[in-house]
Amino acid sequence: MDIRDLARQLGLSIGTVSRALNDRKDVSAATRQRVLEAATRLGYTPNQSGRTLRSGRTGTIGFMLTLEHDSAVHGDPFFMALLEGVQTGLAEHGLDLVVLLARTGEDGLTFLRRHVARGTVDAWLLSATRYEDSRIDFLLDRRIPFVALGRSATARPFAWIDLDFESVVADAVALFAAAGHRRIGLVAPPATINNSHIIVDSYRTALDDAGITFDPALVHNGDTDESDGEATARQLMALDDRPSALLLMGETAPVGAYRALRGLGLEPGRDIALIGLRDSPTCRALSPDLTCFTLALEDLGLALAQGIGAAVASRDGHDVPLLQQRWPMTLRLGDSHHIRPPV
Amino acid sequence: MDIRDLARQLGLSIGTVSRALNDRKDVSAATRQRVLEAATRLGYTPNQSGRTLRSGRTGTIGFMLTLEHDSAVHGDPFFMALLEGVQTGLAEHGLDLVVLLARTGEDGLTFLRRHVARGTVDAWLLSATRYEDSRIDFLLDRRIPFVALGRSATARPFAWIDLDFESVVADAVALFAAAGHRRIGLVAPPATINNSHIIVDSYRTALDDAGITFDPALVHNGDTDESDGEATARQLMALDDRPSALLLMGETAPVGAYRALRGLGLEPGRDIALIGLRDSPTCRALSPDLTCFTLALEDLGLALAQGIGAAVASRDGHDVPLLQQRWPMTLRLGDSHHIRPPV
Repeated sequence: MDIRDLARQLGLSIGTVSRALNDRKDVSAATRQRVLEAATRLGYTPNQSGRTLRSGRTGTIGFMLTLEHDSAVHGDPFFMALLEGVQTGLAEHGLDLVVLLARTGEDGLTFLRRHVARGTVDAWLLSATRYEDSRIDFLLDRRIPFVALGRSATARPFAWIDLDFESVVADAVALFAAAGHRRIGLVAPPATINNSHIIVDSYRTALDDAGITFDPALVHNGDTDESDGEATARQLMALDDRPSALLLMGETAPVGAYRALRGLGLEPGRDIALIGLRDSPTCRALSPDLTCFTLALEDLGLALAQGIGAAVASRDGHDVPLLQQRWPMTLRLGDSHHIRPPV
Repeated sequence: MDIRDLARQLGLSIGTVSRALNDRKDVSAATRQRVLEAATRLGYTPNQSGRTLRSGRTGTIGFMLTLEHDSAVHGDPFFMALLEGVQTGLAEHGLDLVVLLARTGEDGLTFLRRHVARGTVDAWLLSATRYEDSRIDFLLDRRIPFVALGRSATARPFAWIDLDFESVVADAVALFAAAGHRRIGLVAPPATINNSHIIVDSYRTALDDAGITFDPALVHNGDTDESDGEATARQLMALDDRPSALLLMGETAPVGAYRALRGLGLEPGRDIALIGLRDSPTCRALSPDLTCFTLALEDLGLALAQGIGAAVASRDGHDVPLLQQRWPMTLRLGDSHHIRPPV
């Protein structure tokens, strides 16, 4: 019995069970008690999955973090919460997590080659996957186990979990269109990053579904950070036929956008409609409350940890299905999206 | 000539010079040009300092991050920006950075012992230093080079850089006292963390200086995160003789405090005065603008990298002065602090 079985038996999330087993404060005493009793009764042993990993040399999994891209797309708190989940999941396997930071400006493949040559870790978690990502071919060629947080355009099958950007964009555009918006601005990551393509494609599809003509002037590919959100909002509002709604696909972009809009005398949620990517402390600090999407971030980290465990087992000859999973995000309605466009 | 000399010659910060050399976008074209010309003219070579580190076995420095404490005290974006600086500084030495995450609930010394036994890294950067921190004695006993981000109560001298919490608290309390506040609430980290003691001691000293009697009911030691900020603000405002000003020494605590105060019908900056710890995207998202403190975070990372370089050189018999530095933070006036108390 592993932690998944235990969670299923109890009807609880893996995250909750893990937190209860680790005696964390954000679990009620009653739940903790229930989990510990079930663990004893059902014979749950935390380290049994570690057996499949015995052939690992270092007992360590590397998470490759690319500061500039990852911070820009997801914002920082995303990764801290995610890593907490990954670490908890790996601890179940008796494995350690190291985070390896690619140097600013350094080519990702050069970085990976150096660490693979050194044997720093047994297996990899990759983030900030690019549209064309040579790291993926490099690891596949060498049969080094990895799971990517993000998809890529490569034709070869590989293990990944990615946010369900398709649904996020479809939901946001549908919400805007239902309120009557026809000019919907989009702030998306740079085109080198794979999810940028998913986001722009989904945006075009959603516009088509709503019978709205695509206008490239309304799409901005850039850093999606605070300063970029500010500059982009200002640029989009300077258009002759300016947008009445903005979809901001970066975690701190809304902070800059709110500032830019107010600088132009436009109040978010009253004079212009806004939807952001992820519910985070930063977005919760905004007023009016930003409409955005929630996700179970620590559970996503646990799923990545389970995935890399399976990938290592697969290298060792075990037959495991290939992990390819879109991770759900749920719309959280705030007060920033619901104004109607000017008539 | 190293990067420090180059920065001094140019009258620029090390961070700016480093960003210019690394071709980063947040440096103007004119500055970049000026830095590159000076680097060529003055014979700057990025890797020369690496020679002092040849005896290192892995070429890697470990940053030990303790998710629960570090996130609670500083907030997550603090560490991402800091690590960018550390990484840039280490790259100057031809060294890599790995971030090692202590497992939630795991004893820090056990964690450190395991990695030292494995020889994971050559030297360490420690964070979330505790009031009594056995990691420091462990590393000193084994003559393993390290620099701590934070002080500790240990009597033995060791290398550290710490935020200047003394000045932060003194400035904040003086600002409140000058406006006439006598009931100043304090939200500080748990007493196990070293900076909690510095913060509470500085608060008592600043109250004394202002002729205000210390009241333990106004001090809360806890997680200083968003939910704790919310709960604490609610508790403090439920006191019979409630505070008219709050000093919140955690990065996301103000987000929760704003929410709690509004839930009680109190508008921050109008009905109650607030000062926060650090200027961050989260605090910049708050409205009214939070009065807080700025610091050169990437430069702090570079200073830690220089410090660990010197610590490694010291192990190799070079005579270097012991690094013990309080890192300055500068008051940034917003709109949350300046109301006067009710008479």
